[in-house]
Amino acid sequence: MIVIKAGGNGSLNMDAVCADVARLIHQGEKVVLVHGGSHETNVISEKLGHPPRFVTSVSGHSSRHTDRQTMEILAMVAAGRINKLLVERLQQYGVNALGLSGLDGRLLEGKRKDSLRIVENGKRKVLRGEYSGKIEKVNGALLKTLLDGGYVPVVAPLAISYNHEALNVDGDRVAAAIAAALKARTVIILSDVPGLLRDVSDETTLVSHIPALQARGYLDRYAQGRMKRKVLGALEALNDGVGQVIIADGRLGQPVQQALAGRGTVVQ
Amino acid sequence: MIVIKAGGNGSLNMDAVCADVARLIHQGEKVVLVHGGSHETNVISEKLGHPPRFVTSVSGHSSRHTDRQTMEILAMVAAGRINKLLVERLQQYGVNALGLSGLDGRLLEGKRKDSLRIVENGKRKVLRGEYSGKIEKVNGALLKTLLDGGYVPVVAPLAISYNHEALNVDGDRVAAAIAAALKARTVIILSDVPGLLRDVSDETTLVSHIPALQARGYLDRYAQGRMKRKVLGALEALNDGVGQVIIADGRLGQPVQQALAGRGTVVQ
Repeated sequence: MIVIKAGGNGSLNMDAVCADVARLIHQGEKVVLVHGGSHETNVISEKLGHPPRFVTSVSGHSSRHTDRQTMEILAMVAAGRINKLLVERLQQYGVNALGLSGLDGRLLEGKRKDSLRIVENGKRKVLRGEYSGKIEKVNGALLKTLLDGGYVPVVAPLAISYNHEALNVDGDRVAAAIAAALKARTVIILSDVPGLLRDVSDETTLVSHIPALQARGYLDRYAQGRMKRKVLGALEALNDGVGQVIIADGRLGQPVQQALAGRGTVVQ
Repeated sequence: MIVIKAGGNGSLNMDAVCADVARLIHQGEKVVLVHGGSHETNVISEKLGHPPRFVTSVSGHSSRHTDRQTMEILAMVAAGRINKLLVERLQQYGVNALGLSGLDGRLLEGKRKDSLRIVENGKRKVLRGEYSGKIEKVNGALLKTLLDGGYVPVVAPLAISYNHEALNVDGDRVAAAIAAALKARTVIILSDVPGLLRDVSDETTLVSHIPALQARGYLDRYAQGRMKRKVLGALEALNDGVGQVIIADGRLGQPVQQALAGRGTVVQ
C-alpha cells in the first residue's frame, strides 16, 4: 500500500503522476492518491471576485483565511475540478479511480478551528469565521472497502467537523493520516522542491535520508513553512506505523518511480 | 429502494429534500439522491467569462452546447460545489451521505455525442467538440456496496465515455438508469412544476396518474421540452422493472413525502 500526495501549487507534473500510479496499479500495488487545491482555488477565487486573504499568525506564519465563501470555492475547485479531472486522467490510463472528499462518508473527520489569532498592522486580533481544522479520524473501513473492490481512491483535502461543517485541511497531513489508518508501507509527498534542503535556496543541499529518531532535530534545524508541515506529517505517520515517508520532486518525469528509487528525502 | 432526482434550475427546496431523505433513511429505507447542475453552471460560467451557449437542434429543440471548457466548469460546479454542499447538508441531518459523479469508479458509462446537428441563422450546421452523451451502463455493484455499507450515494450528472472522457448527461435519465440498475421500487423526479400538465400554462391541469401502457400517448400529447425527457426516463425505468415513477413538485415543503403520498404525476 502506497499513499501519494501530489499537487497544490500548480507546477507539478500531474500527468506523469497519473502514469506512475497506473504502473503501480498494473503491478498489483494498492494506491491512494491525495491531491491539493490551494493554487487553483486562489486563481478561481480571484476570477469570482472573492480574492484569497492571507494572514500572519501570532507565531509569524502566513496562512490562508478560509471563510465560508472560500470554503465553498475550495469544495468546487478541489473536490470538483481537480478531483474529477484526475479521475478522468487516471481512467484514461486504465485505472479505475474513484474521487472522494473528506466529507464523503465522513472519510476525514476533525475539529474545526473557527478563529485565527493573527497580527495585522502590528496589532493582535482574533479573526472569526474560519473553516479549517486538523484531521483526527479517518474512515479506514470505507477506503478498505473501495480498495478491495479494485478502486483507486483519489482524495480531495476537505474534511468534516464534528458539527458536520466542511473544513479546509492540509493535504500533506491528509496523506499522513490516511497512511497511518491503512498502515501503509510508504507515503510519497510530491511538491515543487527536491525534498528537505539544508539551504532552502540551494537544491544541491538535499537531505537524502533522515532516521526517524532524528527527524525532530532536522525539522527544527532546516524545515520552514510548508516543508515544516511535510516533515511533521512524516513524523506522525512513522509514529503511527507507516514504514517510510519520501518527500520528493513532483515536477520530474516519473516522479513516483524516482521517489521510490530514493530520489528525495527518505524518512524512515 | 427509492431513487430521488432533485434540482437543476435553482428554485427547488433542497433543504426540504435533504430533511425528507433523512426521514426515509431513519425509517430504514435505502435512498440514492441524484442532483442537477445546469442552473448554477450557467451562473458560474458567466462569471468566469465563458457564458453558456444554447443551440437549436435540427429537430427544433433548444439545448446546451457542452464544449470541453463548459464540461470542466460543470465538473467543478456539479461534482464539486453542489454535490459537496448536499453531502454536508445531509450529514447535518444525520445521513452518512457520500458524493460521486458518474466518472468515479465508472459509475455511469455511455457513448459520447461529439457533435450536434443544429440550425443557426436558418442554416443547418454540424457543431463539433460536444461533450455530452447518453448513459448505457450503470456500475450497480458499486452502488450496492455503498448502500450495504450504510452510505447514501449522492450522484452528480456526469458520465464517462467509452474513450474515458467526462460527459454531461441528463440528471432525470441518470435517476432512471440508476433505478433500473438497482430495480428500485420508486423513482421520484422533483422539478419546478407540479408534474405533467395537460396545459403547460395552467397548474390545475395536472395529470395525476398515467398507466404505463398509456405513457407513450401522454408523452406525445402533453409533454414538452424538459418534461418530455422526464416522461421518457420514466418509461425507460418502468420497462426495466422499476415499480413506479412519480414526477412531482420540488418547490414545496416535504417534497419527497408529498410525492410518495401521490401528489404529482404517478406513472405505474
